[in-house]
Amino acid sequence: MTRDTAGRSSASSGASPRDVAVAGAGMIDFGELFDQSFDDMAEQAYLNALDDVDRGIEPDDIDAAWFGTLDIAGDASSGLGLAHATGLFGKPVTRVENACATGSTAFREAVQAVRAGSCDVALVLGAEKMRDSAEGLIANAALDQLWRGRGVTMPAFFGLRATRHMEEFGTTREQIAEVSVKNHENGSKYPHAHYRFTCDVEDVVESPQVTYPLNLYDCCPVTDGAAATIVVSEDVVDEYTDDPVWVAGSGLAVDSILRNQDEALSGFPATEQAAAQAYEQAGIGPDDVDVAEVHDCFTITELVTYEDLGFCEKGEGGDFVESGAPKLDGEKPVNPSGGLLAKGHPIGATGVAQVNEIYEQLRGEAGDVQVQNDPQYGLQHNIGIGRNATGSVSCINVLSKERP
Amino acid sequence: MTRDTAGRSSASSGASPRDVAVAGAGMIDFGELFDQSFDDMAEQAYLNALDDVDRGIEPDDIDAAWFGTLDIAGDASSGLGLAHATGLFGKPVTRVENACATGSTAFREAVQAVRAGSCDVALVLGAEKMRDSAEGLIANAALDQLWRGRGVTMPAFFGLRATRHMEEFGTTREQIAEVSVKNHENGSKYPHAHYRFTCDVEDVVESPQVTYPLNLYDCCPVTDGAAATIVVSEDVVDEYTDDPVWVAGSGLAVDSILRNQDEALSGFPATEQAAAQAYEQAGIGPDDVDVAEVHDCFTITELVTYEDLGFCEKGEGGDFVESGAPKLDGEKPVNPSGGLLAKGHPIGATGVAQVNEIYEQLRGEAGDVQVQNDPQYGLQHNIGIGRNATGSVSCINVLSKERP
Repeated sequence: MTRDTAGRSSASSGASPRDVAVAGAGMIDFGELFDQSFDDMAEQAYLNALDDVDRGIEPDDIDAAWFGTLDIAGDASSGLGLAHATGLFGKPVTRVENACATGSTAFREAVQAVRAGSCDVALVLGAEKMRDSAEGLIANAALDQLWRGRGVTMPAFFGLRATRHMEEFGTTREQIAEVSVKNHENGSKYPHAHYRFTCDVEDVVESPQVTYPLNLYDCCPVTDGAAATIVVSEDVVDEYTDDPVWVAGSGLAVDSILRNQDEALSGFPATEQAAAQAYEQAGIGPDDVDVAEVHDCFTITELVTYEDLGFCEKGEGGDFVESGAPKLDGEKPVNPSGGLLAKGHPIGATGVAQVNEIYEQLRGEAGDVQVQNDPQYGLQHNIGIGRNATGSVSCINVLSKERP
Repeated sequence: MTRDTAGRSSASSGASPRDVAVAGAGMIDFGELFDQSFDDMAEQAYLNALDDVDRGIEPDDIDAAWFGTLDIAGDASSGLGLAHATGLFGKPVTRVENACATGSTAFREAVQAVRAGSCDVALVLGAEKMRDSAEGLIANAALDQLWRGRGVTMPAFFGLRATRHMEEFGTTREQIAEVSVKNHENGSKYPHAHYRFTCDVEDVVESPQVTYPLNLYDCCPVTDGAAATIVVSEDVVDEYTDDPVWVAGSGLAVDSILRNQDEALSGFPATEQAAAQAYEQAGIGPDDVDVAEVHDCFTITELVTYEDLGFCEKGEGGDFVESGAPKLDGEKPVNPSGGLLAKGHPIGATGVAQVNEIYEQLRGEAGDVQVQNDPQYGLQHNIGIGRNATGSVSCINVLSKERP
């Protein structure tokens, strides 16, 4: 069997799966939403996505749904969590969970089902109630079993990557801080961001230390939120919009950090593997990506992700960010929405909100954070850590202004 | 847009997704497996599935995997749980959770991805460690929030359905017990079953009461287990077997029990909706089903499922089981493996093991529990309760000996 550049099977049967597009995107303002229930958040994101469809859409049009959540608050497991929030009863709803790549994996699953012809209109909804019951979750997520006795919390886990990067490549503390400065600058202009303030390098390096070398402004906040996306097949897209954004490629990979101790300390093989899949499917390379939303749970994560995605050479992430290339007006804008650092990281919603931002950027509707390089391709990326911090999972989706 | 009888889009683009087959199935003996870790169980089920493929298969052949687990023991969330147990690193692994329909939903997702052409060989793996940390889970699963003050545990929830069925349709306690007698008879012949004893109606009605009218022998046990299935596309199936079993249809539906208070008290609308989808896709009706593995978490659940699936008319489930129709040598054998009542219910593994049993039945390889009606179609069914027992989710897959 051979595969074409779109990564689909060139089969003796002549079968040819369908193209898939995004036709609507909605989210709520991220933040500490003590006044909203899980259902409140999910319902509003859903209604906002329906409202966003150019020619309108009715709930009855939705054939199936994919629901991304870690269910941290413990009240939304299974597809029932989405159905109860939206009223979409009697329909197929699948809950997907893939650590911090949950939202992007839910989007990927919906795209595959539409491509397979099992439905024409799919809803992707990601939501997470982090503040109600997950106080300190990010800090404690990795504090389990294997590395418990060594104090490897999530900030410490990423902090180790920062010190390794500094030692191996000469990356400076100030370069790492530049990621935070850039993303808070973008977040200050982004209406749905949890944090809307700006900061400079001095603010970052002088903010309270969390785990050397990462300080408070190097860490994403604990944020509640929800986001929803409408995915449609090529066969019905004209009913909903004249300006769809197409799904060009997707990649998903899991990896064991213990298996790649050397490489994994300064990067994430899972990201490299997922990126290779997504680029191959889309028939593009990293140079073709005009705008990206990447997983900046910590500043160092975004910096090594530049390298893992091929936006720059290995070890040059520090120089890349210092050059201004990933700024809003740079040659390769990264995290125009402010990223997880400013927008927030409600885990199940994070990847879905990233897809939505790429959708809006490619349509030229991103308002104050619209990139100005006439973007044709956009990339969305998550990296998750799990399995007691011994493994990582990355999901990447590539969207395209032109039909593949 | 129109849909053909297989439920796939008849698209202007002429796109025609691919047929999908099962080419291998493996599981471990279910039971109280204190001597095995989560990874031990998952790894052995995976190796057994590989060994089961007629012409052999290598781990490198596997393009992607779907992982079904509730992660009750808290050590296996995200796709990393499967990757670490199997060594399938660098590949796409998606964790799926849909309450008690988790395993069947994972199978459904894998089938859709293969149909879409995103992979040719997929692994489905379901596993659950119930005994380590879930002592009493089944009993307490529903004891939350909304109905907490009313004592609606999971047995009580299903017990209410039993008393309603008895009141509304004249179903007798003894008829309900017949489900347990039948399934334990089958389980006594099934090598992987948790319980291998037989019992009669008197044993069931005299076993210790759990919640009226359900006694101990009306309830499935708390069981550890794992099961794995190899799913392949039409394009590569010949490389693996001359005797594949094809996926003919699938259905998935979520429902709110509060929304259907009257109907839902004596049946599950989610099952009816999922069955309608699956039958339509497969182009068959309930009369065409030759063998079924259905969700008998409690005896009453199987009895009402006969009705929800259309194996008999509404209200006639009691007469149906009393007639012997669902026995191993009956006209419509149900749960030849002993069902959840005898085989056990390790939640993530349950649906996968059901798919495997249907696969073996259609291949005529089910040994001492082989049905004798030359089965052409087999059906697998789960019903899950979640969202504080206010909602239900059902997933159904139909397999066929002949290619659709």
